[in-house]
Amino acid sequence: MVNALVMLTVARDKVNAVAEQLAEMPGISEVYSVAGRYDLVAIIRVRDNDSLAELVTNRLRQVEGILNSETLIAFRVHSRHDLEAMFTIGTEEEG
Amino acid sequence: MVNALVMLTVARDKVNAVAEQLAEMPGISEVYSVAGRYDLVAIIRVRDNDSLAELVTNRLRQVEGILNSETLIAFRVHSRHDLEAMFTIGTEEEG
Amino acid sequence: MVNALVMLTVARDKVNAVAEQLAEMPGISEVYSVAGRYDLVAIIRVRDNDSLAELVTNRLRQVEGILNSETLIAFRVHSRHDLEAMFTIGTEEEG
Amino acid sequence: MVNALVMLTVARDKVNAVAEQLAEMPGISEVYSVAGRYDLVAIIRVRDNDSLAELVTNRLRQVEGILNSETLIAFRVHSRHDLEAMFTIGTEEEG
Amino acid sequence: MVNALVMLTVARDKVNAVAEQLAEMPGISEVYSVAGRYDLVAIIRVRDNDSLAELVTNRLRQVEGILNSETLIAFRVHSRHDLEAMFTIGTEEEG
Amino acid sequence: MVNALVMLTVARDKVNAVAEQLAEMPGISEVYSVAGRYDLVAIIRVRDNDSLAELVTNRLRQVEGILNSETLIAFRVHSRHDLEAMFTIGTEEEG
Amino acid sequence: MVNALVMLTVARDKVNAVAEQLAEMPGISEVYSVAGRYDLVAIIRVRDNDSLAELVTNRLRQVEGILNSETLIAFRVHSRHDLEAMFTIGTEEEG
Amino acid sequence: MVNALVMLTVARDKVNAVAEQLAEMPGISEVYSVAGRYDLVAIIRVRDNDSLAELVTNRLRQVEGILNSETLIAFRVHSRHDLEAMFTIGTEEEG
Amino acid sequence: MVNALVMLTVARDKVNAVAEQLAEMPGISEVYSVAGRYDLVAIIRVRDNDSLAELVTNRLRQVEGILNSETLIAFRVHSRHDLEAMFTIGTEEEG
Amino acid sequence: MVNALVMLTVARDKVNAVAEQLAEMPGISEVYSVAGRYDLVAIIRVRDNDSLAELVTNRLRQVEGILNSETLIAFRVHSRHDLEAMFTIGTEEEG
Repeated sequence: MVNALVMLTVARDKVNAVAEQLAEMPGISEVYSVAGRYDLVAIIRVRDNDSLAELVTNRLRQVEGILNSETLIAFRVHSRHDLEAMFTIGTEEEG
Repeated sequence: MVNALVMLTVARDKVNAVAEQLAEMPGISEVYSVAGRYDLVAIIRVRDNDSLAELVTNRLRQVEGILNSETLIAFRVHSRHDLEAMFTIGTEEEG
Repeated sequence: MVNALVMLTVARDKVNAVAEQLAEMPGISEVYSVAGRYDLVAIIRVRDNDSLAELVTNRLRQVEGILNSETLIAFRVHSRHDLEAMFTIGTEEEG
Repeated sequence: MVNALVMLTVARDKVNAVAEQLAEMPGISEVYSVAGRYDLVAIIRVRDNDSLAELVTNRLRQVEGILNSETLIAFRVHSRHDLEAMFTIGTEEEG
Repeated sequence: MVNALVMLTVARDKVNAVAEQLAEMPGISEVYSVAGRYDLVAIIRVRDNDSLAELVTNRLRQVEGILNSETLIAFRVHSRHDLEAMFTIGTEEEG
Repeated sequence: MVNALVMLTVARDKVNAVAEQLAEMPGISEVYSVAGRYDLVAIIRVRDNDSLAELVTNRLRQVEGILNSETLIAFRVHSRHDLEAMFTIGTEEEG
Repeated sequence: MVNALVMLTVARDKVNAVAEQLAEMPGISEVYSVAGRYDLVAIIRVRDNDSLAELVTNRLRQVEGILNSETLIAFRVHSRHDLEAMFTIGTEEEG
Repeated sequence: MVNALVMLTVARDKVNAVAEQLAEMPGISEVYSVAGRYDLVAIIRVRDNDSLAELVTNRLRQVEGILNSETLIAFRVHSRHDLEAMFTIGTEEEG
Repeated sequence: MVNALVMLTVARDKVNAVAEQLAEMPGISEVYSVAGRYDLVAIIRVRDNDSLAELVTNRLRQVEGILNSETLIAFRVHSRHDLEAMFTIGTEEEG
Repeated sequence: MVNALVMLTVARDKVNAVAEQLAEMPGISEVYSVAGRYDLVAIIRVRDNDSLAELVTNRLRQVEGILNSETLIAFRVHSRHDLEAMFTIGTEEEG
């Protein structure tokens, strides 16, 4: 699994709408609306680099209301949980 | 469930050690070592605000090697997955 | 009680109007118009996380004239005063 | 009443100790340990400018562990509450 | 006397006009057009906090061409000169 | 008269001492200890560019405790007051 | 060979189009669409300073959609590969 | 091939030494010492994500003299050249 | 001679035109179009402060296409060359 | 002629010494000690890229007291003066 976090600044009146739109996108497992320096953080969990590239450089760029986005691609994930199993079962149709 | 993301800048020679130490902490479900402006991002999933406060303002501050941390507390989580179920089953002993 | 501070940058000609509008909002106990890097700081005192989320991600985003806002959610409050009592008495109808 | 907010960055291992030390200081009504870009925010409520100057440029500067502080002095306070009464009753010995 | 410095960024074609307009305002003793990070710096010398608040949060905000302003309120003034006398004589009608 | 403002960041425990030391320096008419992004602002009023250069690039650099300084040299001064007269009378011995 | 890297911020809906347009430009050997603080990074390999100046200060500035660009000119290149040979063979017609 | 650019700030007296050390590392095809905001930029060309992770989160962090590094992982590469062929031939032993 | 450097950010499509326009201005001896954080750097060499003020706060502000400018006034110039002679001979008509 | 400007931040007590040392270096035609965001700006005029690389990445890095330097290499120079002639006559021994 290839993981990344996308830190998003969104037009003030579109934050909730963008959050819901992203959460429906294959490849995005969860979207947090957060306090602090950013508005939203999307967690991406996809099969390979091409899926990641397609999601970030294509689908995400068509979402209206995103003012700025900065993607933090994960080198490694450290967890007690078997995230791959947890998310792959529920996400066969994922990118 | 109360969620937060902690954006961490870590001493260059301690990044992997800190990642592993955090991933073992009750309340931290996963730690990403990332490319970009931060070194690590820890995802916190805990039962209530007190658990969050105790984890961030106490346990996290005792971890050696963290140079700077900025916590983004989630107002809401948007997801197709039942994250609460996925993470609570595997995390009864969580903070 | 859940507390937070919202640091606000406001359109130059709307600072006083926004301050008064926010000060009337249930859940906002006081609004300071300040010198320095920000224009306004709103102190939020509400019953629980949902009230905080509803106030910040919904009602605040409908206020015209706010150019940028950054919410600092409080982990803990340290005070000689019984803030909960002081503000809950006067704020039964609060969010 | 003269009001100000002091945004504080504190040495990681001293945040809680500094918060408690500040909360005991006459003139400081509450101290929030916050998530986000700062570590602590102290709310100052004092009688006049001299008390404010003495607190910020003298007493605060003797507190160990504060790395950086930025004071936002309030021009005006907007509130449904009678803050002057609420805090003056409980704070006769205040600066 | 209450003193403050206002650091101003001004639309390129309005710097001189804004400087002259501010210099005529009661409460503003001098306006420097400066080289460096800011365009103008206004020195405020007024009788009390209310005059300062009225000048900065009201009159200054009606001046066209000011893109950004940051007010540095003085806690104390250190000088060999008797500034209060020097500026009060010439400034009876001051705010 | 050549004017400049020096924006100073000072070691926390030396702010008052540095302010007093600068206020005694020929060429510095007043020093403000301020709230906000800087600690002190010194107003320089000297006869010519050489006096300014000598004060800023020589005498100021020998003052202990100054962490960072940024000089804003004034192109022009706009004022209802005859600042040259006000400050020259009291400042014959100035740099 | 004269080398430089151009760090580009591009309008969200034009990133892929700009990448392809730049990759076709004589003198640009490769264009990376990247995660992180920038959108694209173009690697320039040209014969001499004039070709570099012509490419950056003329041709690049006519590409629509580039919001900001910062050129890092290389003093030296360190590599195990004979980059000059590798890129000159395929790039006779280069600028 | 997985590509990334590492933007490096290096101790002033170690820039050349670090450049040469990095250029010898399998997986790093070239290192530019640049003018501008960074000191060095390393171009990484490796077979897969694990090689990238191992190079950046392990080998690079053992190089003395690197003060700060920020990795820009490439989603896609746009080029008229067959970079994969050009660099794979000469780089069988690569990471 | 009074010297200053003006660091300029210019609209992308006007950089060359602005450079040529400035280079023709009495008082500006040379204009560099540069790689890096700025677009242009103009070197000012004029007879006195008034000429500098007139050039920067008046003539320069009428040049179309300049988005931002920051003037660095020189306290002193250190050089093996007799810059005053070199530039005054060719610049009798200078401001 | 290859031109560049080096923006320098220098240890407070070494600014004058560094300025004089740089001004004696072949290839550096003048050094300005400036007001504002930087301490010194060195103007480099050398014959070719190698001389520039040798000066910036080697000789400059051995000068004690320089905390940070950022080189702006010139793509083009626009001037009414024949700078090449003016500086080459007096600079035969230049790098």
